[in-house]
Amino acid sequence: MTSASVLVLNGPNLGRLGSREPDVYGSGTLDDLRSILEADAPDGTTIDLRQTNDEAELISWLYEAVDSGTPVILNPAAFTHYSYALRDAAALVPKAGLALVEVHISNPHAREAFRHTSVISGVATGVIAGFGFDSYRLALTAITRLD
Amino acid sequence: MTSASVLVLNGPNLGRLGSREPDVYGSGTLDDLRSILEADAPDGTTIDLRQTNDEAELISWLYEAVDSGTPVILNPAAFTHYSYALRDAAALVPKAGLALVEVHISNPHAREAFRHTSVISGVATGVIAGFGFDSYRLALTAITRLD
Amino acid sequence: MTSASVLVLNGPNLGRLGSREPDVYGSGTLDDLRSILEADAPDGTTIDLRQTNDEAELISWLYEAVDSGTPVILNPAAFTHYSYALRDAAALVPKAGLALVEVHISNPHAREAFRHTSVISGVATGVIAGFGFDSYRLALTAITRLD
Amino acid sequence: MTSASVLVLNGPNLGRLGSREPDVYGSGTLDDLRSILEADAPDGTTIDLRQTNDEAELISWLYEAVDSGTPVILNPAAFTHYSYALRDAAALVPKAGLALVEVHISNPHAREAFRHTSVISGVATGVIAGFGFDSYRLALTAITRLD
Amino acid sequence: MTSASVLVLNGPNLGRLGSREPDVYGSGTLDDLRSILEADAPDGTTIDLRQTNDEAELISWLYEAVDSGTPVILNPAAFTHYSYALRDAAALVPKAGLALVEVHISNPHAREAFRHTSVISGVATGVIAGFGFDSYRLALTAITRLD
Amino acid sequence: MTSASVLVLNGPNLGRLGSREPDVYGSGTLDDLRSILEADAPDGTTIDLRQTNDEAELISWLYEAVDSGTPVILNPAAFTHYSYALRDAAALVPKAGLALVEVHISNPHAREAFRHTSVISGVATGVIAGFGFDSYRLALTAITRLD
Amino acid sequence: MTSASVLVLNGPNLGRLGSREPDVYGSGTLDDLRSILEADAPDGTTIDLRQTNDEAELISWLYEAVDSGTPVILNPAAFTHYSYALRDAAALVPKAGLALVEVHISNPHAREAFRHTSVISGVATGVIAGFGFDSYRLALTAITRLD
Amino acid sequence: MTSASVLVLNGPNLGRLGSREPDVYGSGTLDDLRSILEADAPDGTTIDLRQTNDEAELISWLYEAVDSGTPVILNPAAFTHYSYALRDAAALVPKAGLALVEVHISNPHAREAFRHTSVISGVATGVIAGFGFDSYRLALTAITRLD
Amino acid sequence: MTSASVLVLNGPNLGRLGSREPDVYGSGTLDDLRSILEADAPDGTTIDLRQTNDEAELISWLYEAVDSGTPVILNPAAFTHYSYALRDAAALVPKAGLALVEVHISNPHAREAFRHTSVISGVATGVIAGFGFDSYRLALTAITRLD
Amino acid sequence: MTSASVLVLNGPNLGRLGSREPDVYGSGTLDDLRSILEADAPDGTTIDLRQTNDEAELISWLYEAVDSGTPVILNPAAFTHYSYALRDAAALVPKAGLALVEVHISNPHAREAFRHTSVISGVATGVIAGFGFDSYRLALTAITRLD
Amino acid sequence: MTSASVLVLNGPNLGRLGSREPDVYGSGTLDDLRSILEADAPDGTTIDLRQTNDEAELISWLYEAVDSGTPVILNPAAFTHYSYALRDAAALVPKAGLALVEVHISNPHAREAFRHTSVISGVATGVIAGFGFDSYRLALTAITRLD
Amino acid sequence: MTSASVLVLNGPNLGRLGSREPDVYGSGTLDDLRSILEADAPDGTTIDLRQTNDEAELISWLYEAVDSGTPVILNPAAFTHYSYALRDAAALVPKAGLALVEVHISNPHAREAFRHTSVISGVATGVIAGFGFDSYRLALTAITRLD
Repeated sequence: MTSASVLVLNGPNLGRLGSREPDVYGSGTLDDLRSILEADAPDGTTIDLRQTNDEAELISWLYEAVDSGTPVILNPAAFTHYSYALRDAAALVPKAGLALVEVHISNPHAREAFRHTSVISGVATGVIAGFGFDSYRLALTAITRLD
Repeated sequence: MTSASVLVLNGPNLGRLGSREPDVYGSGTLDDLRSILEADAPDGTTIDLRQTNDEAELISWLYEAVDSGTPVILNPAAFTHYSYALRDAAALVPKAGLALVEVHISNPHAREAFRHTSVISGVATGVIAGFGFDSYRLALTAITRLD
Repeated sequence: MTSASVLVLNGPNLGRLGSREPDVYGSGTLDDLRSILEADAPDGTTIDLRQTNDEAELISWLYEAVDSGTPVILNPAAFTHYSYALRDAAALVPKAGLALVEVHISNPHAREAFRHTSVISGVATGVIAGFGFDSYRLALTAITRLD
Repeated sequence: MTSASVLVLNGPNLGRLGSREPDVYGSGTLDDLRSILEADAPDGTTIDLRQTNDEAELISWLYEAVDSGTPVILNPAAFTHYSYALRDAAALVPKAGLALVEVHISNPHAREAFRHTSVISGVATGVIAGFGFDSYRLALTAITRLD
Repeated sequence: MTSASVLVLNGPNLGRLGSREPDVYGSGTLDDLRSILEADAPDGTTIDLRQTNDEAELISWLYEAVDSGTPVILNPAAFTHYSYALRDAAALVPKAGLALVEVHISNPHAREAFRHTSVISGVATGVIAGFGFDSYRLALTAITRLD
Repeated sequence: MTSASVLVLNGPNLGRLGSREPDVYGSGTLDDLRSILEADAPDGTTIDLRQTNDEAELISWLYEAVDSGTPVILNPAAFTHYSYALRDAAALVPKAGLALVEVHISNPHAREAFRHTSVISGVATGVIAGFGFDSYRLALTAITRLD
Repeated sequence: MTSASVLVLNGPNLGRLGSREPDVYGSGTLDDLRSILEADAPDGTTIDLRQTNDEAELISWLYEAVDSGTPVILNPAAFTHYSYALRDAAALVPKAGLALVEVHISNPHAREAFRHTSVISGVATGVIAGFGFDSYRLALTAITRLD
Repeated sequence: MTSASVLVLNGPNLGRLGSREPDVYGSGTLDDLRSILEADAPDGTTIDLRQTNDEAELISWLYEAVDSGTPVILNPAAFTHYSYALRDAAALVPKAGLALVEVHISNPHAREAFRHTSVISGVATGVIAGFGFDSYRLALTAITRLD
Repeated sequence: MTSASVLVLNGPNLGRLGSREPDVYGSGTLDDLRSILEADAPDGTTIDLRQTNDEAELISWLYEAVDSGTPVILNPAAFTHYSYALRDAAALVPKAGLALVEVHISNPHAREAFRHTSVISGVATGVIAGFGFDSYRLALTAITRLD
Repeated sequence: MTSASVLVLNGPNLGRLGSREPDVYGSGTLDDLRSILEADAPDGTTIDLRQTNDEAELISWLYEAVDSGTPVILNPAAFTHYSYALRDAAALVPKAGLALVEVHISNPHAREAFRHTSVISGVATGVIAGFGFDSYRLALTAITRLD
Repeated sequence: MTSASVLVLNGPNLGRLGSREPDVYGSGTLDDLRSILEADAPDGTTIDLRQTNDEAELISWLYEAVDSGTPVILNPAAFTHYSYALRDAAALVPKAGLALVEVHISNPHAREAFRHTSVISGVATGVIAGFGFDSYRLALTAITRLD
Repeated sequence: MTSASVLVLNGPNLGRLGSREPDVYGSGTLDDLRSILEADAPDGTTIDLRQTNDEAELISWLYEAVDSGTPVILNPAAFTHYSYALRDAAALVPKAGLALVEVHISNPHAREAFRHTSVISGVATGVIAGFGFDSYRLALTAITRLD
């Protein structure tokens, strides 16, 4: 799939990457992640990486994706486990014929029990978890390079 | 009950009505809904229809209802299933002697299992679900025309 | 929707309305309810209000609705929580293209936990609960006056 | 409490006593039980023992108790485990200031798991279980002889 | 096992067969079913097919089977999922040395979750489900022709 | 059944009767209860009423009952809900051919959810609950006067 | 349905029939069963009865059925309760337009709780349980003789 | 622990204190609470009391605490029961070596069942609940005066 | 609240403090705790610190508090999770108008799942957990110094 | 492991061994068991077998083990299923480097469902169940003879 | 990570790809998949793709990976939901410092409820699901090309 | 009990003992275990130690035990938690009058939650867990040396 842009949306507390639990999430920051993805991106593909702790803002970005025809890499972070509002918004993306790839840096199944449940996965195109920042890179590959 | 105004509050993703899952929610938009309710409203009754994806904003509107003595028609959308913060705010409305009618466009009991649970219903004056936009019209009737 | 008649079917113990728990159900009787609905009904619409404690009789009335093309307002009362036989019969009404509106006088979600579960709602056209006798009036409006 | 009459109401399948599972229920019949209770009853107290497999009929007998001011001994049999309609009717008896004693011939807690749950007990004046026909005799004592 | 008669008892809503959800239950009626079974029955064996929506009547027919020594084919329909009263009555049949075959037209395990639970199966001689009207034919074979 | 003595054993916090929650338990004390039971007891029958907050002491009294052939009226109070040690001891009484009647002053099913579960009832001869002190009187009747 | 062959597949431990729990399963062996089915089979219909304790082998036999267009009688034995691998394979049979009849010798609902759950039934054409070896005979009838 | 400032963070609907359910929460307002805490605070300790209905804002304040080395008194209000996003943010505070004291005005265990579950407590330094505004005062003592 | 004495009651295994799991409970002993609390106590307030592994003894101490009008700091230790007998006794303290503060040294929500449930909290005046010995000091402050 | 003494601690109702349910527990008494273990014990190893129905006493014996460096064979009997107080005490034994072997005479998994749960096993060194008195003998072997 | 070989292991029923439920799994076969992966693989990297319905064989291939230092792409298919034996074997791979990537062709969270549970994910390096054959391609990228 | 041979059967992944999680399982191999058991075995008793990852093979070995009259020491490893097929086979051993001792090297109750459930224990003669290889030695003692 060719696409001029990819939205890389990050949910609550991911802005603290690099300092928050480096043993779980690594020491890279979101800026590092943006650089990595930009380096990976095919020529002409823009990486639009954003982060918010705000459920409503995250929802509005998903609408932006739908309205502009942009595929999405979504790390819902803790919203994964309870935000049905996010689920309903996320569901719009694949319904618009666009990829919505749910990513997780760590493997939620290897952590606390409450992290084993995702209310988002049921509407995602696909799910990639446990590869650190490479989860995002694989999602980008899924969206931009496979055919 | 006579009232100069009725607040018609809509939760997350309802701003996408008309384009989101028309088979479930119909093809009408919120603007269409406003027109329908304005046509239904008794003379002198203003329809104040709003929508937000933001839990905090929705809560603030409920305070506005309490402080101005305005009855409320509330479609909590996906917040129905987990927002205890919204529940605590919604509970203030009937405690102030004002109607708080929970409405749903579709019938949640005929959809996914997670939609069968409402954390709001326990504090609502009443619940109306499954009639499409007519759920709102019936709620408006309940508030403005019955005696 | 125009209809020459509306069936208003009431399940177990609703014949005791007026004397049973007036703080929960009000002091009106079923006869009062019939009068109220008759006053509300559009010209030419007959209100056929019935009550039974008998599951089989209630089921037979639902068949009567299907066979005569009559829409139904159904207060399943305690059957709400366990009568799958009633559910299977109620499901026939919307399948015949007729409205089947489930009503409750009080708000079941504000009462004992066992009243939070309805085995009927999943097959109803819509549900209206918590408005006292006005739940029926709203249901009648839904069936006879909205267009 | 003095009372001119006591209603002894028996639910489904109790008409088969004497032949049904004599190891569990004993070999006495309902006629035997009536004789035993009549012998026990104080002078001037009539024993009105009835049995039905019909939920609606059992409910109507409870109304009869309420309307005539008669205390009730109720063996709900299998209705114990699911008939919320019966529960709602049974609740009317103590609300009318009359005893409603739930009895069981065998001890439900020593039988299958589904028999451990009673939807009736929560509204009964009291519960007596496990004494064979003596469960009824004790209930009669509770109603007629204690002061 | 030779038997002069077989009781074929049908629970709630099965009288609507042919018109109710033909995609699930087929377009045959109970009369069609009676004819099929009569054609299948060995010479001298009477098919006594009945249907009721009434729990108490269904129970009384099971007593009739016990008292007359007649084997039973029972389709409990929706009673399958909650009628412990029916269970207690059905249990009398195999205790009297007579076959009690529980049948279902469709396969309950391929339908809604609430249909996966049977409170009857634990006391049945055997269970046959999913073969349409042939479920009854197989049950008749089980009762009349195998040796 | 004739018996020279009856053990009336009371579990934790029942020594506070009369002052503890009089609205639930009444204003009578254990001494009042002893007097009532002594007045009820047949000639020659001694009432040996005891109370303890100590699980081990209560167990030892049950042994005493077994060893002396004395029937038991047991109000396990809060032990009802968790003391499997008491259950194992109580089970010895009916196994020795002696009555073990579980009594409760109030109706546990009309109180908090945790009080709906009894780990004792499964091994009791019978259960009597909800009659205030009359629960004990009925138990005494069950043990001493019925035949 | 005419068919040149019927596969009769038996899961784990069924090779021990005749010696394993004869009170539950009877004293017949699989060889006895083969003979019985061969006697029952219409002319020209071969009974291909097999047994294995090996999940993979059982799966391969189901493929064989799909590939050769042979209907299947399947007693999954203990695999019934957990083998989703077998379920996925079994599902292929009805999808290929072939009957897949799940049979059980005893009635699982009358045995331990874990036997009440079948992960296979949801994909079976039909289920027959509780008739001893006659469960197989009825399944054979269902496949070969009904029309 | 000496600290120049203490953040006192209040979640949704706590801005309505004083008017919302005074029987549960008392009639004091957040301004009253600020005054009380300021009076309690040791010289040189600033009380920075804030309230928000906005999950994202509450999270940002927790970051502010981490970044400025300020201990936190947190009343998560209804977020207590579902906001894993808040949990992940709150967890950063003790990981930064700062106290994070969860407080509740009323005792959640004495209220509705859904209030018995806290998704925050597992990462809090400590929890204080049930003392009205004194819950905050005790938390302040815990942070500023104990050694 | 002024009080001449405060009962500081400690449940099972707390006598081993100092040697038991010092990483969880610290290295202080109950004697250390008594000294700390005595130093904290206002003039004229006696600290009556006790420990027992005996449920009945702990209950008797709660009676002593009720009878002498003494407020209580209660660390129920493992009894927290199952002793309904202790709950019933603890409930008497606030009913007598006296504080009953439940304390825990560590934060139960950060430990094994079974420690997340308290059967005591529902009847406590308030709960303080997670501050080590300071949990007791805060409880003492709650009882003696706040006004 | 060499040890001068082994504590063999027995929980509630085990003092009734020999007379209590001999079909489950055998006819041997605790004295018989002591003799058997003394015969088995290596020279110089004392068997200190005790029994109590008292949770607190059992806890104190575990402390004695810890303080004297004595390994423990523990049959917690019914305490197995609920006594977290015992669990916390038992956990001290392996933490002190001493064996704590949980034994059961019968196999709890072959008995009532409530006996399938052990709150003790999680802290035991090892568990031996189902061998009658030989469970103790094997535990003694584990402690004294293996190397 | 450079690796001379990658093991691509496929669990039960995946050998039927191409013919089994093409709407869910696509019409490609395992041979197609091998070709795709071989085309993707870096020079010098061998794709060793295998499939088995046999749990033990799948386990043995995981050992082969451990012993030869080969990373693994594992599609456990239906074993995902119950095979703890496979889990224990899979856990060995990451413990040996080798990637173990769990892949699924479809998105299990969008299918039947039983497919939402994975007993494998907790020990996997990472999980990729929902991308059709591209799930494998992404896993191959994760193993061979990222750095 | 004298026996010429003892079967020591080991389930999935136990062939990796020595290298798999040595902190949990120790560093001994199965060969080491065989040597230890041979050294322990009484003269004339052969140790027949086997291991398989194959459920069907393990089942066949249990038949071999039944047919040759050989007692069994069974470590079901991960099959413990789900293999009802193994359970049904294992049940045959005690039914044949032979010991079937379930052993575990580590204590499953001190590990992940899924390891707390055994579907095998309910049919085992006895269970020994947590003693490392000594679990087997004790099982051998149970079988060969006790009398």
